[in-house]
Amino acid sequence: MRVDIDGARLLSDLRRLATFGAFETGVDRPAFSDADLAAREWLRQRMIEAGLDAAIDNVGNVYGQAKHAARTILIGSHSDSVPKGGWLDGALGVVYGLEIARAVAAAGVPGGAGIDVISFQEEEGAYLPLLGSRAFCNQVSEAEIDAAANADGHSLRDAIAGCGLGGRPPARLDPARHAAFLEAHIEQGPRLEASGTSIGVVTALVGIRRYRIELTGQADHAGTTPMEMRKDSGAALIRLAHDLLGLLEAEKGPETVWNIGKASLAPGAFNVVPATAEFLLEVRDTAAGTLDRLERKILALVSKADGGAGVAVAAHSAGGVAPARMDGDLRAAISAAAGRLGASAIELPSGAGHDAMMLARHVPAAMLFIPSVGGRSHDIAENTPDADIILGCRVMADAVAALLAAM
Amino acid sequence: MRVDIDGARLLSDLRRLATFGAFETGVDRPAFSDADLAAREWLRQRMIEAGLDAAIDNVGNVYGQAKHAARTILIGSHSDSVPKGGWLDGALGVVYGLEIARAVAAAGVPGGAGIDVISFQEEEGAYLPLLGSRAFCNQVSEAEIDAAANADGHSLRDAIAGCGLGGRPPARLDPARHAAFLEAHIEQGPRLEASGTSIGVVTALVGIRRYRIELTGQADHAGTTPMEMRKDSGAALIRLAHDLLGLLEAEKGPETVWNIGKASLAPGAFNVVPATAEFLLEVRDTAAGTLDRLERKILALVSKADGGAGVAVAAHSAGGVAPARMDGDLRAAISAAAGRLGASAIELPSGAGHDAMMLARHVPAAMLFIPSVGGRSHDIAENTPDADIILGCRVMADAVAALLAAM
Repeated sequence: MRVDIDGARLLSDLRRLATFGAFETGVDRPAFSDADLAAREWLRQRMIEAGLDAAIDNVGNVYGQAKHAARTILIGSHSDSVPKGGWLDGALGVVYGLEIARAVAAAGVPGGAGIDVISFQEEEGAYLPLLGSRAFCNQVSEAEIDAAANADGHSLRDAIAGCGLGGRPPARLDPARHAAFLEAHIEQGPRLEASGTSIGVVTALVGIRRYRIELTGQADHAGTTPMEMRKDSGAALIRLAHDLLGLLEAEKGPETVWNIGKASLAPGAFNVVPATAEFLLEVRDTAAGTLDRLERKILALVSKADGGAGVAVAAHSAGGVAPARMDGDLRAAISAAAGRLGASAIELPSGAGHDAMMLARHVPAAMLFIPSVGGRSHDIAENTPDADIILGCRVMADAVAALLAAM
Repeated sequence: MRVDIDGARLLSDLRRLATFGAFETGVDRPAFSDADLAAREWLRQRMIEAGLDAAIDNVGNVYGQAKHAARTILIGSHSDSVPKGGWLDGALGVVYGLEIARAVAAAGVPGGAGIDVISFQEEEGAYLPLLGSRAFCNQVSEAEIDAAANADGHSLRDAIAGCGLGGRPPARLDPARHAAFLEAHIEQGPRLEASGTSIGVVTALVGIRRYRIELTGQADHAGTTPMEMRKDSGAALIRLAHDLLGLLEAEKGPETVWNIGKASLAPGAFNVVPATAEFLLEVRDTAAGTLDRLERKILALVSKADGGAGVAVAAHSAGGVAPARMDGDLRAAISAAAGRLGASAIELPSGAGHDAMMLARHVPAAMLFIPSVGGRSHDIAENTPDADIILGCRVMADAVAALLAAM
């Protein structure tokens, strides 16, 4: 079978979706905002027009099911945005799903197969990151929903009740129905653009380990206290952070990245030896084994530093997520489709988290990236050339055609 | 001549002074507070009772002059405190002056000589540090007074006017009258206590150089941006600060101390490569030449770092003061007095600033330190055993007797 997407219709729908919460060249459409809810209702209508059986579920997921299909490929992403974010982050993958569902329906599907489309709610974490895809995979407890609130202290429970979603039935992943999950997304990084490549085939979504490293010394007058009598948590932080950067450089795997994103010394004056110091370290890799190995080495270095020059050092785990491998057959299908269409493609990891991270634990999942101009995202400057947007959808549609034919 | 101080009277006056602005075991007596002004009025009365011609001047200095004396030794310090500070910081040196003036008067002074006593205003810098001693040395401009305000935005000009000091005559240093300035102070550091020494003879007050070092890179997603494409101001800060600590350790003089008291990365999140970073560096030494040499090396290291890994680095001077050598003859007189009284003494620099720093530019000046329990100061825990307080005053009085005899 041949699935022909309509590039003009795809772009038109993307641009229409960007009018909900439009903010300068981007969108301001956090989960459960009026703009977000209006966008979801519009998406539901578009899904119905595409022939899907569509509804908004009890957390705000917009889920459109192929009628009369027993086995489907689920395609989607999220339509909420970060505050003052870009127009493509999330929206792209949802509208790809919508367009491919329309194109597949037009092409005529082999009996019993079809395309389901989803826009997950609250991927960005205004209240609780990945809420929609976690709920879809039945991985959120009521207690977590009760505890979640946004930066203004508004509770997630109130947000859900406030838009009248509370009593609706949940949408749920069904491995018997969903043969695969496909998510398209802008890269949010510079690799595709820098290498002049049209398609990124994601190997894995990186796992993340986060550490808060706390140093406790003693405040002293920085003029009157001899150097050798100080318990200087600031100097200890600088030495330890320096050694950690060296360790990570020496021990990294081919895809490891890391960041020291925050550091502070207290009380924080020219003439006071810092009493306490703290910094945040994050390490990402696609391989859990590499993260385990690096964690052992990081903790050993922290242990070695503990107590040196009178400064206590402790590393606290500050959360993380496990890496999610993308399915080999689905990756091969995307690469083959790119080859057939003459689109340049490379394999690369996703350094950021996506809804596919949740889905991949339960069904075969894959992601396709298209270039981000300047690598920018989470910003109104986020953009991708129209030709790249259309080409990405053609490649996914061609891969879907091949997968459907084999189902 | 022999000058016998009255230890009980000395302690009683110190304890009475500590009732003004008493806060738990310390005092809360910032310059121009009600407590400060009441303490100054009490000091003026005590100076008059000691036979001095005493007045509060146009910035709040309490200055008591020996009557009928043409040549004097000026003794004093300050009676304002930091917020929630200690009971001895400043107060000790003022009450030593008062007690020695009384003892000298009782001993009978050789013709034409005498003791002047002063409590400088605002040494601690609620509005303008060293205001009193700077004004006494005629080193404050009206423009500086106009510009100064405290942390609440209350102007120094209003503070002065509010206590009715505006129209009073200024007290002024007079090198023809003041043969010397002597200031006693608690050490505010641990050396005397740690070495079991009673008396510190100050060699010099350290000079200070302060630098604000600013790094400018670029914010990027810490998951999706390859390490080699980052302009990471946080990693650049850690490397530069580490190299600066190494440089200072390698190049320090025998009395150099330094501190990195504050550091910050912005925007400051686990998953954002820091766009900008900043840290504060301070270096202290008694030798201007050493400070000059270290400054050249610091700036060279900053220059070398500038532009590395795409991060711009700039060092901004953030103020400083020149070192102040204490007078050799006065130091010898204090050491000799300690020897005569069997008090252990060592020479040491003052790592902190004091009013003597200003006076030393114009007249021979010296400082005597007594131990600080635990090296603590600028805190209500600040303390010194009574015996050490009395012994310090005896040593200063004996030195004063010898100096007066030689005048």
